[in-house]
Amino acid sequence: MASSALKSDKKIVTGPAGYVLEDVPHFSDYIPNPPTYPNPLQDNAAYSVVKQYFVDEDDTVPQKIVVHPDSPRGTHFRRAGPRQRVYFESDDVLACIVTCGGLCPGLNTVIREIVCGLSYMYGVKKILGIDGGYRGFYARNTIDLDLKTVNDIHKRGGTILGTSRGGHNTTKIVDSIQDRGINQVYIIGGDGTQKGAAVIFEEIKRRGLKVAVAGIPKTIDNDIPIIDRSFGFDTAVEEAQRAINAAHVEATSFENGIGLVKLMGRYSGFIAMYATLASRDVDCCLIPESPFFLEGKGGLFEFIEKRLKESGHMVIVIAEGAGQDLLAESTEQSTTLKDASGNKLLQDIGLWISQRIKDHFAKKMTLNLKYIDPTYMIRAVPSNASDNVCCTLLAQSAVHGVMAGYNGFTVGLVNGRHTYIPFYRITERQNKVVITDRMWARLLSSTNQPSFMRQDKVDSNHLVGEAAAMKW
Amino acid sequence: MASSALKSDKKIVTGPAGYVLEDVPHFSDYIPNPPTYPNPLQDNAAYSVVKQYFVDEDDTVPQKIVVHPDSPRGTHFRRAGPRQRVYFESDDVLACIVTCGGLCPGLNTVIREIVCGLSYMYGVKKILGIDGGYRGFYARNTIDLDLKTVNDIHKRGGTILGTSRGGHNTTKIVDSIQDRGINQVYIIGGDGTQKGAAVIFEEIKRRGLKVAVAGIPKTIDNDIPIIDRSFGFDTAVEEAQRAINAAHVEATSFENGIGLVKLMGRYSGFIAMYATLASRDVDCCLIPESPFFLEGKGGLFEFIEKRLKESGHMVIVIAEGAGQDLLAESTEQSTTLKDASGNKLLQDIGLWISQRIKDHFAKKMTLNLKYIDPTYMIRAVPSNASDNVCCTLLAQSAVHGVMAGYNGFTVGLVNGRHTYIPFYRITERQNKVVITDRMWARLLSSTNQPSFMRQDKVDSNHLVGEAAAMKW
Amino acid sequence: MASSALKSDKKIVTGPAGYVLEDVPHFSDYIPNPPTYPNPLQDNAAYSVVKQYFVDEDDTVPQKIVVHPDSPRGTHFRRAGPRQRVYFESDDVLACIVTCGGLCPGLNTVIREIVCGLSYMYGVKKILGIDGGYRGFYARNTIDLDLKTVNDIHKRGGTILGTSRGGHNTTKIVDSIQDRGINQVYIIGGDGTQKGAAVIFEEIKRRGLKVAVAGIPKTIDNDIPIIDRSFGFDTAVEEAQRAINAAHVEATSFENGIGLVKLMGRYSGFIAMYATLASRDVDCCLIPESPFFLEGKGGLFEFIEKRLKESGHMVIVIAEGAGQDLLAESTEQSTTLKDASGNKLLQDIGLWISQRIKDHFAKKMTLNLKYIDPTYMIRAVPSNASDNVCCTLLAQSAVHGVMAGYNGFTVGLVNGRHTYIPFYRITERQNKVVITDRMWARLLSSTNQPSFMRQDKVDSNHLVGEAAAMKW
Amino acid sequence: MASSALKSDKKIVTGPAGYVLEDVPHFSDYIPNPPTYPNPLQDNAAYSVVKQYFVDEDDTVPQKIVVHPDSPRGTHFRRAGPRQRVYFESDDVLACIVTCGGLCPGLNTVIREIVCGLSYMYGVKKILGIDGGYRGFYARNTIDLDLKTVNDIHKRGGTILGTSRGGHNTTKIVDSIQDRGINQVYIIGGDGTQKGAAVIFEEIKRRGLKVAVAGIPKTIDNDIPIIDRSFGFDTAVEEAQRAINAAHVEATSFENGIGLVKLMGRYSGFIAMYATLASRDVDCCLIPESPFFLEGKGGLFEFIEKRLKESGHMVIVIAEGAGQDLLAESTEQSTTLKDASGNKLLQDIGLWISQRIKDHFAKKMTLNLKYIDPTYMIRAVPSNASDNVCCTLLAQSAVHGVMAGYNGFTVGLVNGRHTYIPFYRITERQNKVVITDRMWARLLSSTNQPSFMRQDKVDSNHLVGEAAAMKW
Repeated sequence: MASSALKSDKKIVTGPAGYVLEDVPHFSDYIPNPPTYPNPLQDNAAYSVVKQYFVDEDDTVPQKIVVHPDSPRGTHFRRAGPRQRVYFESDDVLACIVTCGGLCPGLNTVIREIVCGLSYMYGVKKILGIDGGYRGFYARNTIDLDLKTVNDIHKRGGTILGTSRGGHNTTKIVDSIQDRGINQVYIIGGDGTQKGAAVIFEEIKRRGLKVAVAGIPKTIDNDIPIIDRSFGFDTAVEEAQRAINAAHVEATSFENGIGLVKLMGRYSGFIAMYATLASRDVDCCLIPESPFFLEGKGGLFEFIEKRLKESGHMVIVIAEGAGQDLLAESTEQSTTLKDASGNKLLQDIGLWISQRIKDHFAKKMTLNLKYIDPTYMIRAVPSNASDNVCCTLLAQSAVHGVMAGYNGFTVGLVNGRHTYIPFYRITERQNKVVITDRMWARLLSSTNQPSFMRQDKVDSNHLVGEAAAMKW
Repeated sequence: MASSALKSDKKIVTGPAGYVLEDVPHFSDYIPNPPTYPNPLQDNAAYSVVKQYFVDEDDTVPQKIVVHPDSPRGTHFRRAGPRQRVYFESDDVLACIVTCGGLCPGLNTVIREIVCGLSYMYGVKKILGIDGGYRGFYARNTIDLDLKTVNDIHKRGGTILGTSRGGHNTTKIVDSIQDRGINQVYIIGGDGTQKGAAVIFEEIKRRGLKVAVAGIPKTIDNDIPIIDRSFGFDTAVEEAQRAINAAHVEATSFENGIGLVKLMGRYSGFIAMYATLASRDVDCCLIPESPFFLEGKGGLFEFIEKRLKESGHMVIVIAEGAGQDLLAESTEQSTTLKDASGNKLLQDIGLWISQRIKDHFAKKMTLNLKYIDPTYMIRAVPSNASDNVCCTLLAQSAVHGVMAGYNGFTVGLVNGRHTYIPFYRITERQNKVVITDRMWARLLSSTNQPSFMRQDKVDSNHLVGEAAAMKW
Repeated sequence: MASSALKSDKKIVTGPAGYVLEDVPHFSDYIPNPPTYPNPLQDNAAYSVVKQYFVDEDDTVPQKIVVHPDSPRGTHFRRAGPRQRVYFESDDVLACIVTCGGLCPGLNTVIREIVCGLSYMYGVKKILGIDGGYRGFYARNTIDLDLKTVNDIHKRGGTILGTSRGGHNTTKIVDSIQDRGINQVYIIGGDGTQKGAAVIFEEIKRRGLKVAVAGIPKTIDNDIPIIDRSFGFDTAVEEAQRAINAAHVEATSFENGIGLVKLMGRYSGFIAMYATLASRDVDCCLIPESPFFLEGKGGLFEFIEKRLKESGHMVIVIAEGAGQDLLAESTEQSTTLKDASGNKLLQDIGLWISQRIKDHFAKKMTLNLKYIDPTYMIRAVPSNASDNVCCTLLAQSAVHGVMAGYNGFTVGLVNGRHTYIPFYRITERQNKVVITDRMWARLLSSTNQPSFMRQDKVDSNHLVGEAAAMKW
Repeated sequence: MASSALKSDKKIVTGPAGYVLEDVPHFSDYIPNPPTYPNPLQDNAAYSVVKQYFVDEDDTVPQKIVVHPDSPRGTHFRRAGPRQRVYFESDDVLACIVTCGGLCPGLNTVIREIVCGLSYMYGVKKILGIDGGYRGFYARNTIDLDLKTVNDIHKRGGTILGTSRGGHNTTKIVDSIQDRGINQVYIIGGDGTQKGAAVIFEEIKRRGLKVAVAGIPKTIDNDIPIIDRSFGFDTAVEEAQRAINAAHVEATSFENGIGLVKLMGRYSGFIAMYATLASRDVDCCLIPESPFFLEGKGGLFEFIEKRLKESGHMVIVIAEGAGQDLLAESTEQSTTLKDASGNKLLQDIGLWISQRIKDHFAKKMTLNLKYIDPTYMIRAVPSNASDNVCCTLLAQSAVHGVMAGYNGFTVGLVNGRHTYIPFYRITERQNKVVITDRMWARLLSSTNQPSFMRQDKVDSNHLVGEAAAMKW
């Protein structure tokens, strides 16, 4: 994938006092004089009373908003919303929607609201669902979507379109888009999926097609940078409370009871961190960004022993990606173990650490450790009210952007405002909990857990870069 | 444990037309002319308007109520409830409550209502909680219980007294009861706990103590015989729906998606069966009582392949005790496996069968199997409204029975009526799903799963005996 | 409606020792030698392993099961379930389902399971839904029902068929049944609806039609006699907890806070009683069966003042039919009031009593009274797991009974067993809370509220008759 | 209240390019050279690894962040968070917390986290709760608060301190603060309460006391300006879904079914608007900011008739403050009505409009209107996970600000960042839905309801001023 090619396409606009706009591509970048039409919203009764309904072309949103009186103005993104002129005639639109990767609460709401937005706001009638992720473009039949099909789907978890990982074959996908006459492509998926969307856009541009590609970033882990939070995250944190509550009840009902909950978060510990902050019942939260060790002074075992002696029970939350270094070490040393019981089981940090804790204390004291893995129960719930609103506005922003001729962009909340962001900004790195930031300090303060860090070992990667999303 | 001794103590009363009463022991069986007092409820304003409030001494409840016009009348149990004379003066009572074994929704409600029942109805003021199960009698301090302590506990899961397995030392326990001056012992626990209660009662009787022992049977698995259902079962089936729903969403969102849910039920599959019947989303339910096999014609793999081809996804519910014979076989053959990854992991039928299914289909087709184990999330929830009422009435029945001088009994719903049952009747065997009964047929009909049985191999143990509880 | 005619049709069978069977009508009562066929369940794989699957013709269930050694055997009902011979060929069946009256959790599950039961168990292919209650028979088009239509409906509240009150025109309905060729009629509804079903059956019998009429009793109030509980009741009690919890929070957060919750129960206070017993947060429960008065010694105002002084707050639960005598009195005296604000508002006992309480204390003390009416929020929820199982088995029992040639009956749980009950037994009177029974005493004891009764005024109607349902 | 006096105290700092900081008061404004101390967080293990933990004195957050390349920088607020120097020694602190006004989800979490924040972060040991709102300062005993008292309170709705309206007597309150030696006052309440807090601060300053006053704005209606959203709002919108779902089920189950839900919002319709956007089941949303009329062309009745004809049912959401002009008119005309049935009933817009709709259609068509008022059921729930995190950070921000010597300020999220805001900015006007803004247009588009506006009548107040909170 030609990341340099992508970067060469960056549309950077500068202004006074250090103002920078990282703009998104547009049809007019590669299609000469594309025809435009008045936005049909102008005739919509609902909008007729709203003054200044259309977004001013100059509206932008700053990325960094903790400022000093004399700070340079810094990076901005284009504000999302309807424009006065659109680049499609409603009758000519053939839109398609695809969902890729793992489940996340809200997928069906996003699908529903793209369909509703296109239909109600722009009078679009032809909308297709791609079946089962990227490979559905070329290996499956499409699914007709209309207002009736999507009417109740936001009350169900999962995705009615089906999803899968992989299956990204740029040529086949763009061929299919071209052959079927699709001219709007809405791609809902995570990091890898958005990278795929960027490549599809590049190929479309290379072929000079008037096909718009918009990404709606999906990650239950909240590990996409720039944006405030991803849809479904709020629901996931809410649902995680059930597991933590259960762990707390189990822990407090038995002598030396330990409730251990594994939560999602392969590379970033946002769900674990927020679920811990929301619960107030957690004694220890372990995330990928914060290395820890088990044995010896300052290690996890010591802390467990201390906490059990103090209060007789303990709740531990661990993100699935935490402690992978320990797991890797342990697995290398015992290759027979790996071969015998299969890769999968061993790589579950929750099962592994449960066993390690039990083994460590086996001769010392009676432990009652209960391990809970609520992952699939969290992923599969329907989105809550807050995420429903979030999904609705993301979908509408994507539709407005596409109709307005923007292309090769993703939508996202930046400081509470909907914006259009170039693909490269959300795929070039992952959002991570910055463990030297105040949010993590708040967590440490609320759990009173040790930092488990040796000052010399702090991963310098975690110390730099922009502040994490949800920077309260 | 002298089961024959216990049996020799059976109090069997017979009557006309085959009427049999399996009565429970009473103080007057071994204490000559114990003093009695008028029931203080007679002066309670709440009860004063109720005619016939006190239970008639002759009231009994039949065990078998599907009858023919000329059926013999069969076994009956004594009806629970307040009696006109009591065997304790309120000021003399020193009651204690102990919870043993695993968690079950409703434990705190039972504790609360024993305290409230003793206080409000009988004016008892001294009630102790035993800390952490049987061993708390001799190894821990007691916990003072009063109306204020227990006020809100029914809204929390777990047990405020703590619980544990084992720790049953008859001599130490009865010594402690005697030394502390306790004269009412309420024991909440499962099969093993009730056996322990029976032995404690025997020892108390042997020593000639005026100490009442009452059991409140607790089993989330509903595996206690005679009684209609045990408290917490309803809540557990309700809570299991979350896991099944999640499994269904995961299964339907991926190609060849399988959602596999492990539910409680070490020896009996009631939770799995009722959760399946309540959900209507389950394609296959596997329980301990119904043997199954994996490979070959009529086996599980064949059924999975068939169902995936038909509908593209599948939900399997498996009770934790199902297929243990397969697991045992597999483990024997691969002893290195057992040693390497530890006993615990291997004994989880859910993890094991997930791996077996994945292995079997690895070369045939892409599967997306998601395994969900909601056990601890189910056990730890507070009881629902229905179980709250159930727990309240069980607790009150136990208190009435103890005050009335009955001793060495358990309380339980029989055909919708509260009764006193001799210990031996609920510990002599386990309640099991009768797979030749109509309830299981209903399940098979609703899932359309094969019977997985070879007619020659049907375990004859399952075909005989009394009908299962909840015989709708 | 010829109630005497109905009664003359009673099928009473007597046996030894006072055994009485109140049997239900059957095709063979009025059709000479109707043809029969082997039950197709015999060939169903799911049932083939089940021995004794078919119900023995002699199986009956006693109504009264608290017995003495020498009690007469009393009234019995016929046990529900599949019979070896059926009276319909599957291909000839044209079934219809109608829902009447108010909403109740579980309606959709009953509809679903009649469809599934007929399809899966008996191979029936033609099933119609009647649109919007009785009047749908003659004033609307029918709705085709099949396995796909009903697949997910049990997860939704309400009824997919629509419902209404009234619209019962016997001639038009039976004409429509005859004209459309319908031969199985499943009628889901309350008291009035079942009376209507009885009349429809009488007319069908008069015309000599081979059309089966089965009732599934529906009453969220649980006011149908004989049966243990009606479907949806459990869900309603559960859902009522939310309102009571909210009332409790409001009451405890303000000085002299009163939370007042109105619950369903026009003529019987079961929901109020069970919701109170389940909650443990209620200080006073007022139901139609227990008269009360407001002013003076022993009245409600006195009790409110006392309880507020003791604990500073109070939660009151009132059934909608409670205190209607007070309301009537008050309304008569102030006819202008009635005319001015309309009948509806005034008949809401909750609004009325809230105002009376506020007025009474207006000069005495500051009250913070919050009135909550959760009625429609309770009625509209989907049924919980327990009610789902209940609905499933009721539906299957109805289907089995109809296929077996029984006609003019209702299905119901009697002492935990499914039975067939003649219409007249469930419509001849209403089930009521027996306030001289122990259940009400338990409630009084748990709330410590006064009886509000003057001994001379106790309605003697409440003191006699059979014990109430759910007689724990 | 001397609003001009307050305004004269505005601390306005200006900078280059139109930068304005609206700063908050500080001890150093009126106490000469107050002593300072190192922040004890410097020694806290949890914080020791966090670089740049303390907030830079120059950090500010802009109010308006949709900008043009050459926009002036505009108004900013001071960023919340810990400072390197504090103005209290931990042992000298005597803090108090008071809750005023109506209930709102999250009150207990805020109380808990002020206590935890003061204790864990700053080692404060003496914290008092004021009983029952402002009047508790002088008319009641205080309540001791510590870590144990507040441990579980975030799982309960309401406020453990009790609350009330009114009772604000500046002199008595400040006397009490002075007499008791309180030096930190945390005031949780709405608009009026914050005005009261401002006056208390003025009096404290006038007396030259070293007492800090911090407000935590509480409004379930989200009607406080400047801030993104108030705590509890998210939970309220979530909980409102239950009522809307029930209304939808009732509406769809009956012919011409109308489900009408009244939601909170006396002066602003945020809950109604967001609940409508989240639900997708609502056909019409009526809020105080958008005038409407009943009769004639373009009126509500016409719309109801149209929608019922189209789809047979309808869900209406109405904010409690909507249509008060209509209500006032109607009440004036019918004074007898007002007198007879009492003020309260008539002022309920939900009951009133239900009656008006029924009356209007009485002769035209059969309506089945169900009115649901879930207000108290929404207010009383515990806060959800998202609001728990929100409350935690608000509480911590308030504590940090007070310790840092700021005084007479409120805390609030501005564009996702925690800031300190002068009292006058949040009390000078109310936050309202801007009906000429895009959010309302989105709602109109999703419900397809008419604007109900006559262009000449649009209240110009709604068209000006700053954009509403939550401006997505």
